[in-house]
Amino acid sequence: MTAVAELRKTVASLHRELTRYGLVSWTAGNVSARVPGAGLMVIKPSGVSYDDLGPDAMVVTDLNGELVEGELAPSSDTAAHAYVYRHLPEVGGVAHTHSPYATAWAARGEPIPCVLTMIADEFGGDIPVGPFALIGDDSIGRGIVETLRGSRSPAVLMRNHGPFTVGADARAAVKAAVLVEDVARTVHFAHQLGTPDAIDPQHVDRLYARYRNVYGQ
Amino acid sequence: MTAVAELRKTVASLHRELTRYGLVSWTAGNVSARVPGAGLMVIKPSGVSYDDLGPDAMVVTDLNGELVEGELAPSSDTAAHAYVYRHLPEVGGVAHTHSPYATAWAARGEPIPCVLTMIADEFGGDIPVGPFALIGDDSIGRGIVETLRGSRSPAVLMRNHGPFTVGADARAAVKAAVLVEDVARTVHFAHQLGTPDAIDPQHVDRLYARYRNVYGQ
Amino acid sequence: MTAVAELRKTVASLHRELTRYGLVSWTAGNVSARVPGAGLMVIKPSGVSYDDLGPDAMVVTDLNGELVEGELAPSSDTAAHAYVYRHLPEVGGVAHTHSPYATAWAARGEPIPCVLTMIADEFGGDIPVGPFALIGDDSIGRGIVETLRGSRSPAVLMRNHGPFTVGADARAAVKAAVLVEDVARTVHFAHQLGTPDAIDPQHVDRLYARYRNVYGQ
Amino acid sequence: MTAVAELRKTVASLHRELTRYGLVSWTAGNVSARVPGAGLMVIKPSGVSYDDLGPDAMVVTDLNGELVEGELAPSSDTAAHAYVYRHLPEVGGVAHTHSPYATAWAARGEPIPCVLTMIADEFGGDIPVGPFALIGDDSIGRGIVETLRGSRSPAVLMRNHGPFTVGADARAAVKAAVLVEDVARTVHFAHQLGTPDAIDPQHVDRLYARYRNVYGQ
Repeated sequence: MTAVAELRKTVASLHRELTRYGLVSWTAGNVSARVPGAGLMVIKPSGVSYDDLGPDAMVVTDLNGELVEGELAPSSDTAAHAYVYRHLPEVGGVAHTHSPYATAWAARGEPIPCVLTMIADEFGGDIPVGPFALIGDDSIGRGIVETLRGSRSPAVLMRNHGPFTVGADARAAVKAAVLVEDVARTVHFAHQLGTPDAIDPQHVDRLYARYRNVYGQ
Repeated sequence: MTAVAELRKTVASLHRELTRYGLVSWTAGNVSARVPGAGLMVIKPSGVSYDDLGPDAMVVTDLNGELVEGELAPSSDTAAHAYVYRHLPEVGGVAHTHSPYATAWAARGEPIPCVLTMIADEFGGDIPVGPFALIGDDSIGRGIVETLRGSRSPAVLMRNHGPFTVGADARAAVKAAVLVEDVARTVHFAHQLGTPDAIDPQHVDRLYARYRNVYGQ
Repeated sequence: MTAVAELRKTVASLHRELTRYGLVSWTAGNVSARVPGAGLMVIKPSGVSYDDLGPDAMVVTDLNGELVEGELAPSSDTAAHAYVYRHLPEVGGVAHTHSPYATAWAARGEPIPCVLTMIADEFGGDIPVGPFALIGDDSIGRGIVETLRGSRSPAVLMRNHGPFTVGADARAAVKAAVLVEDVARTVHFAHQLGTPDAIDPQHVDRLYARYRNVYGQ
Repeated sequence: MTAVAELRKTVASLHRELTRYGLVSWTAGNVSARVPGAGLMVIKPSGVSYDDLGPDAMVVTDLNGELVEGELAPSSDTAAHAYVYRHLPEVGGVAHTHSPYATAWAARGEPIPCVLTMIADEFGGDIPVGPFALIGDDSIGRGIVETLRGSRSPAVLMRNHGPFTVGADARAAVKAAVLVEDVARTVHFAHQLGTPDAIDPQHVDRLYARYRNVYGQ
């Protein structure tokens, strides 16, 4: 199977994680993967039901978002994904949802404070807020890239909009999308009845380093 | 297949979206579709389990709510659907649920403020509240129509009752029912820990226009 | 099929509604049905996984809770169900859960106020609170019966414990268990951000009467 | 089947209860079982998807956490499980999740007060908080053991981290993980709109004793 064919399968199946964890409603939300070394990306088509997102429905664009392969129009967030791939060469995957708890923090423009070991592990500190940006040009992409450059977090909460997440590949970006909602929710609950203590920054560093180096297979 | 047979299938399958997204409990909630050019509508029967809502269970009424075809009594909200079709000729579908977050805003009689790009996209501004109205005559239908005429929103939060949504067809009405609950929930969460900024009305207009013209296939 | 065999099937399948709507965790919760004219009831066994609750797992007891048929020990709430059947002859089914929102109102000892048309329809007014009662004798049953006698509601919120619901048959009792959680949740959400207006008692009466006489098939 | 083979099956299937009840996201969370009399335990591998957790994926370690059998690296929480087995000989199973409501109490460092009969039944009183502890040595295990020794509760809320639960076998530990989230959620809801009364300690004792001796088969 070619790299593109393989990535069509991967990206299609990762969209099922968005519905499994309740991160998306109707046709909102999207995942993409960079095609390594090819100047291309594989992304979800615009406005198609999650039930119909098989590998063949995925579309391929160049890194300016121009359609290269596929019969459907690409996601309306394609320009933002493309901007990220052009400016962050280490990123191999991008995910975007309007998951409810993360989007509530985004609506208030408040970073999610690092009060859980899971936040230290996966995000390495507070989860930052990006600017309000209109769709239609490079504003969203620029807001994502500028915010992520100042942070270890693979997630940014775009103001009044929702989370965008990145990773070394599409699976890592989707993992960050799942975990940003998980911790956004738990910290929301914690704040409803009090104010949890932040984890000491030195402990955050140790947890973050260990999770990168020891966790998993 | 005749237009009515086709719409029986469509309306039956759209009821599955209400359960998929957790918008309804037991037998509450209903979807209808106008039969174009026929002065008829296809609607859910009253008080039947969602497990039993196949195409044959749907009923056909005229636009005064009188039964034309089908063995079951039509939804107890039939008069409200019929009133909407009689007074809003551009509407081809109506949906009604008691989805919990939207109904909580309805219980307080508070519009959902336009603090998310998704609200600007789909609803074009704040989501309005309709009056308290008793079932049994045209009060509910009249409250829906009068409220929607003053708004770009396809959703109205009927006071102490729940959301009604409309669309060019039944699928669009159900989409609005799914999204009104999604944004009602996210804005509820946002308000629990602060007050999100409203989106600038000029930005709302641009988002709304773009979503109508660019999004989807 | 005998009446008992039929009710074993019905009661077993109604337990699936408790898990479908998320009303129960692990083995908590139970449904029973009176065997008409026989001085018997069919009830869930104690501490058995919901995956294993087929018709054969159900047990039959007399109306003092003594085992008559079945290989498993009856639900630890059998005495409460039996007390209800002995003292409320119009009741044909009883359900009990610890569904989270209804139990939260029960924990605070606050009735759920009638601020939704769905509450007026199904419960005919506020949903009342019963006393704190220990398991092991007739205290819980007596608390249920005394509270329900002062109300049109088929649901009582037993203090620090959870809801018990009754109905003309087991299906109606389970319906009330589903709807009490639904409205407990929506009114909880409404109260988190304000205080909804109560529905005028005259309107409550009209809604309640209509729902009894017009709704359904 | 050998005891180890049997426990691989049991532990694998118990992980499905964690996903069924929404206690875990992605690959977080883990269950283990002591192999009776063998100085060994069966535990989940690290960072493996819940879809892939069949019996063969489980790993066997000694009670210092050293791998004895299996092709995958054991859970990153293995040291904590091992510490519990070395110091609490009556414990046959351990479970750990980041379930959202229990973790919110843990983030604030607040015990869950005994305001529900279900808490009295299963936990015998307030559910206690353990210390903040870094992963990588015996700190987490020590915090769990010291906290549980001062309580009848099979659950401890590890500060800024999440719940650990124990039981006579792995199934009992998972049951406690399910129920600690259930009651954490209900008491969270109760506290959002008021302060529920605590249950009288004498009543707690009677409920706890009865649940141990009468409930179940």
